[in-house]
Amino acid sequence: MWNTNDFTRMLNVEYPIIQAPMAGKPTTPELAAEVSNAGGLGMVGAGYFSVDKVRDTVRQVKELTSFPFGVNLFVVDEQDISADKLEKGFNVLEPFRNELNMNNEMPDLRFDNHLETKVEVLIEENVPVCSFTFGIPSSEILNKLKDNGILAIGTATTVEEAKAIEDVGMDAVVMQGSEAGGHRATFLGEANDSMVGTIALVPQTVDHVSIPVIASGGIMDGRGCAAAYMLGAQAVQMGTAFLTTYESGAPHLYKEAILDANEDHTVITKAFSGKEARGIQNRFTRFMKEQSFIPPYPIQNSLTKGIRSEAANQDNKELMSLWSGQGNRLSTMIGARELFYKIVREVDQLLGE
Amino acid sequence: MWNTNDFTRMLNVEYPIIQAPMAGKPTTPELAAEVSNAGGLGMVGAGYFSVDKVRDTVRQVKELTSFPFGVNLFVVDEQDISADKLEKGFNVLEPFRNELNMNNEMPDLRFDNHLETKVEVLIEENVPVCSFTFGIPSSEILNKLKDNGILAIGTATTVEEAKAIEDVGMDAVVMQGSEAGGHRATFLGEANDSMVGTIALVPQTVDHVSIPVIASGGIMDGRGCAAAYMLGAQAVQMGTAFLTTYESGAPHLYKEAILDANEDHTVITKAFSGKEARGIQNRFTRFMKEQSFIPPYPIQNSLTKGIRSEAANQDNKELMSLWSGQGNRLSTMIGARELFYKIVREVDQLLGE
Repeated sequence: MWNTNDFTRMLNVEYPIIQAPMAGKPTTPELAAEVSNAGGLGMVGAGYFSVDKVRDTVRQVKELTSFPFGVNLFVVDEQDISADKLEKGFNVLEPFRNELNMNNEMPDLRFDNHLETKVEVLIEENVPVCSFTFGIPSSEILNKLKDNGILAIGTATTVEEAKAIEDVGMDAVVMQGSEAGGHRATFLGEANDSMVGTIALVPQTVDHVSIPVIASGGIMDGRGCAAAYMLGAQAVQMGTAFLTTYESGAPHLYKEAILDANEDHTVITKAFSGKEARGIQNRFTRFMKEQSFIPPYPIQNSLTKGIRSEAANQDNKELMSLWSGQGNRLSTMIGARELFYKIVREVDQLLGE
Repeated sequence: MWNTNDFTRMLNVEYPIIQAPMAGKPTTPELAAEVSNAGGLGMVGAGYFSVDKVRDTVRQVKELTSFPFGVNLFVVDEQDISADKLEKGFNVLEPFRNELNMNNEMPDLRFDNHLETKVEVLIEENVPVCSFTFGIPSSEILNKLKDNGILAIGTATTVEEAKAIEDVGMDAVVMQGSEAGGHRATFLGEANDSMVGTIALVPQTVDHVSIPVIASGGIMDGRGCAAAYMLGAQAVQMGTAFLTTYESGAPHLYKEAILDANEDHTVITKAFSGKEARGIQNRFTRFMKEQSFIPPYPIQNSLTKGIRSEAANQDNKELMSLWSGQGNRLSTMIGARELFYKIVREVDQLLGE
């Protein structure tokens, strides 16, 4: 039985399929709840949420499902850059603000991740699973989660990162292959040195850690899930496949861009956030590729926030962040539950029920 | 039966496992013959060989096996650059020539691929399979191969390239995932835009072509082979795994570098040949990364040939090309036939005999 293993027992889910926590608009309470109701693990990408929005969203998910679900948080620190560099990073974006008829005021750059407070909310709300991206949370946070019976999942892009996640006592690790859409989770070394494909990354990791390994990156259907199982993964995490579902909160234009994209249309870019991420190439990624300096994350993320938001309002996909994995030819506009059952049927056919 | 399909019937081999044609020293007649004798398809990487060496090598393989084997050739044209640029590309390498106590004479840059003549040799010698990299051969060549019952296999990095290979009537296509070691086979568009991971590339290709799809890139053991099978591939092509076998002609230092490497130690570099290739980072790749200009392939290949060769003689792995896929943690020093049987056993266990 491909769907009975340490992972499904540990999480008390029927199928070892996680809907990736795509931070921002995509992971609505409806999407996460539909996946959990179907027997997988729905996830809320709450990395950019305020503490209040974390609580509200969790409560909404709980109204829609009684099955386990999870929340993803970012482990990230504030960055400092010189006033000169900040001005340079701000000024280079002026043509885009003008094109979108925006004012040219410096946006609010204050950044407080409120990680501890968000974790408190998850504990208060009895959220069963918390996953982390961009680093390893403090032992204080991990101990609190453990004391409250909340499973902690890390995200890694290399075997060394997976070992570090196991060493601090986390319960499972998502291995993010180079095919994955959205931000690279790399926290040891450089993101560009850690672009390892899923088919190579998973078996090498399985040989070096004993916690369950969750495969992600380029997995779009039952074929990808069955392949991940053969590689030794105990579960899969799928983002792009769920991004084009009806329940996903991604703007319609963004969904259409993924449905229209080919496997070679994406690029790793720091254009939107200052941190490497995979998305569909557009005018903004091409323009920023020519710049000698991009402020670091999360400063660049704050600097482009208004532009991305206004571009979405104005249906201008050339200036929006269009995160996408490399499996985008396999995307379909479909209900989340229908997609989930389709995937399960395909895996059953390939691996036997 | 995972090993009975269009591909094994077409090639008349017992197992759908191809030993990748690693051009240069690795694919000795002994290596290719051992793989063919074990029931797979041994390949000779003859892209850099003279016509005479192609004939000699083929004859040696035929003395060692009566089973099918193949030869890989390059589809590549001569390049012209200005005398200024050539001088710049030559001069930047002077410190390395000095370090290796080499003279500073411009090497012979004449380049004639002799593709037609090499194909004639394969026909004369009744070689059953010919694969091509870096492009699609002329219809004249393809017709000659077909008239003589020689199977033609193309190499692609995107779905569009696979469709182009099918459209000209070739018999199968190797899909090279981004994990693969050695040169990128990209011939439409840019290599850097075509870095698609195997787990994403294979199912998308299978949906768009009807010729057998051969998965390559990051496949090192039975787990990788079984995963490729789940993705819809009819065969796999494995390079790095066979590079460290006893029969491989790769220098010992190169084999040791792969055995010592981790999945995040490789880089895509134009340093050695002017064409993107994946290899282990060393002083030479780091130095060339800082250069604003690298002559195109095959000029840069000729310019660095002496340096690579002399570095190997002097046991200096910092100046050698150390092509490696991203699955290098799974490499072992082992006999080719023992490795082959180990892989078959693993696939049998995972998929059932």
